[in-house]
Amino acid sequence: MEKEKEQPTSDFQTRRKFIQHTALATTGLALAPALNLFAANFTESPSIKSRGFAATAADAKLSKWNFERRAVGDNDVLIDIKYSGICHSDIHQMRGHWFPQQYPVVPGHEIAGIVSAVGKNVSKFKVGDKAGVGCMVDSCMECKSCKDGEEQYCENGKMTFTYGAPDKTSPSGLTQGGYADNIVVKEHFVIKIPANLDLKDAAPLLCAGVTTYAPMMRANLKKGDKVGIAGIGGLGHLAIKIAVSQGAEVYAFTTTEAKKADALAYGAKEVIVVKGDQDLAPHFGKLDYMISTIPYDFNVDAYASLVKPHRNFTQVGIPIGGKLSVTAFMMARNRVNINGSLIGGIPETQAIVDYCAEHKIYPTIEVIKADEINDAWDKVVNKEARYRYVIDASTF
Amino acid sequence: MEKEKEQPTSDFQTRRKFIQHTALATTGLALAPALNLFAANFTESPSIKSRGFAATAADAKLSKWNFERRAVGDNDVLIDIKYSGICHSDIHQMRGHWFPQQYPVVPGHEIAGIVSAVGKNVSKFKVGDKAGVGCMVDSCMECKSCKDGEEQYCENGKMTFTYGAPDKTSPSGLTQGGYADNIVVKEHFVIKIPANLDLKDAAPLLCAGVTTYAPMMRANLKKGDKVGIAGIGGLGHLAIKIAVSQGAEVYAFTTTEAKKADALAYGAKEVIVVKGDQDLAPHFGKLDYMISTIPYDFNVDAYASLVKPHRNFTQVGIPIGGKLSVTAFMMARNRVNINGSLIGGIPETQAIVDYCAEHKIYPTIEVIKADEINDAWDKVVNKEARYRYVIDASTF
Repeated sequence: MEKEKEQPTSDFQTRRKFIQHTALATTGLALAPALNLFAANFTESPSIKSRGFAATAADAKLSKWNFERRAVGDNDVLIDIKYSGICHSDIHQMRGHWFPQQYPVVPGHEIAGIVSAVGKNVSKFKVGDKAGVGCMVDSCMECKSCKDGEEQYCENGKMTFTYGAPDKTSPSGLTQGGYADNIVVKEHFVIKIPANLDLKDAAPLLCAGVTTYAPMMRANLKKGDKVGIAGIGGLGHLAIKIAVSQGAEVYAFTTTEAKKADALAYGAKEVIVVKGDQDLAPHFGKLDYMISTIPYDFNVDAYASLVKPHRNFTQVGIPIGGKLSVTAFMMARNRVNINGSLIGGIPETQAIVDYCAEHKIYPTIEVIKADEINDAWDKVVNKEARYRYVIDASTF
Repeated sequence: MEKEKEQPTSDFQTRRKFIQHTALATTGLALAPALNLFAANFTESPSIKSRGFAATAADAKLSKWNFERRAVGDNDVLIDIKYSGICHSDIHQMRGHWFPQQYPVVPGHEIAGIVSAVGKNVSKFKVGDKAGVGCMVDSCMECKSCKDGEEQYCENGKMTFTYGAPDKTSPSGLTQGGYADNIVVKEHFVIKIPANLDLKDAAPLLCAGVTTYAPMMRANLKKGDKVGIAGIGGLGHLAIKIAVSQGAEVYAFTTTEAKKADALAYGAKEVIVVKGDQDLAPHFGKLDYMISTIPYDFNVDAYASLVKPHRNFTQVGIPIGGKLSVTAFMMARNRVNINGSLIGGIPETQAIVDYCAEHKIYPTIEVIKADEINDAWDKVVNKEARYRYVIDASTF
């Protein structure tokens, strides 16, 4: 990484490094953000004191941590966090399921609050505005992907995740996320939250919402299309609501019998409780599109085969180690396009927030206190969340 | 299977069985053909004597075998085989790499010869015509896939592979393939070979040709599209020739330095000799389409990432056990559609034969004698084939 400090990383080097990482480990290195070298406005101004809950080791429970944020730079927004959602990714990443993690880190990338200070160049926000932060807080802003509003695919490897990423502007050396009482973020990466959207309902939209919304929008669904949603948790339950709002005929696939009534209430036409692959069989080749939020390894062949030939199956859940198995037999047979999707760009994130505010689509949440976070994590892993835990940041 | 004899298998049953098989084993059971119950015209007429080379066990060398074919039925064509191609699939299947195989079996599904007898209902062929047989010899002929000319995807599970499949019409109880001096096949599954196409050049088109041609046609390539072809063997070298003939800018990926000059001679714009994934890096995200013929497990992530986002990567090689590994990380990052394709339908098989005859596209072959088959198999496995071995059937 030292070499990169001396000269801008070329596109070729980035690609080469990217492929090498993938080849070497097929772990999350491909997603491990590069040092954020171009973050601006890191001055000697007083840093911001922050209180939060941090992971201190892969196997440690989260615990209280007082830390510092960078001072508010000219392009920065300081947000008093009001609510912060708990995402399964927080657990995977903090426990080192994807790649080695440095500690301590405050997780959290579903952040909603009120703007309490702005830098002098900030034009989109003023003190008192509702504002949100999702999964990323920086990127190069210059490459085609960044300019196209797909900052998560920054071609210069400068996309910086909201927590746990090396960050020279942060006093801790790492980005620190939303399980805290405030955050300092570059304006471009801050989302406007409409006045009529409650902050606690807004928070889960910033990851769970956009991660399912973005690929579903790209799928160009037509009214009446049969859409399968596999994994009815934080992401999946929102995906049902979004797809239903767009006129899709939704088939929800869950391993949890107790979620059936909820999924029907959210508008699913049919809920398939999957005890074994035989429960999938009646839907073989019937869906126009399917999205899987399942965050563990599973029978991709069996699920993807529910989609019509030449249509798309999108995997957004990322299992431990990222690994998924498919067979060439089933790919040859079902002719389904298997693909993935990584969160969404800033314009897409703004779009899902605006869309949900307009269509009154809200996540089903349970507000918890800071000292309930560790219990909540266990419940997420045990599929007991209904459907998104949102931390009341006043309890940090 | 007895139950199926008494009543037609319902679509639901077929699907259920299909998914169960996949779930249970993720082996080739999904491709293991069902009993061919509807094969017509099995009478008490004298069966046809045949000489060939058969596999007698997964670990045995092929050896001479005298066996019998069914008598020529009303809808059947008897072909005096002149040439028979050796496909890597022959090796995988006979060695039990995909699923347990019954023996003895004569492999071979790239069959070209001269019609020597026809049943009374046969209208497409007459004695003396050039004719070919590819990878399948029967299907239900009634379902939508069969009617659409995609018999390989027969929805009633009646598609019958040319060799090694249970077959009540065969005296041996199994379909017996093309490493032999004759074959009896239902007219629908026999391909016309144009007069100007040499039989030994026609043989490899019937599997290697159509397996790459069919998905490339479905990819709707435009002139100048950058097409990647991974694995330059029997299938890949033909894929280069076909793609070049359609105006594509072809990038050939091989692990064998010695194939570079050939691939360039076939019209590839660039040949990438892949010693490690770092050799792939310069092509990251640059291809409009890619087809992989690699018949062993490989780094799908690294190869698929060479394709532009939202474009297709098609895997046609089937590794041992069919297993391929991908990571959700790379799928999220590269946004490439990963899919598969199974040989081609009868109309597509006829089309590739006609196309190659018209455009003078011929496989690069080496004609061998029957007693050289075992050596040739070793060479195929060792990547020494240049590029398709074709057996002179007069030597059986």
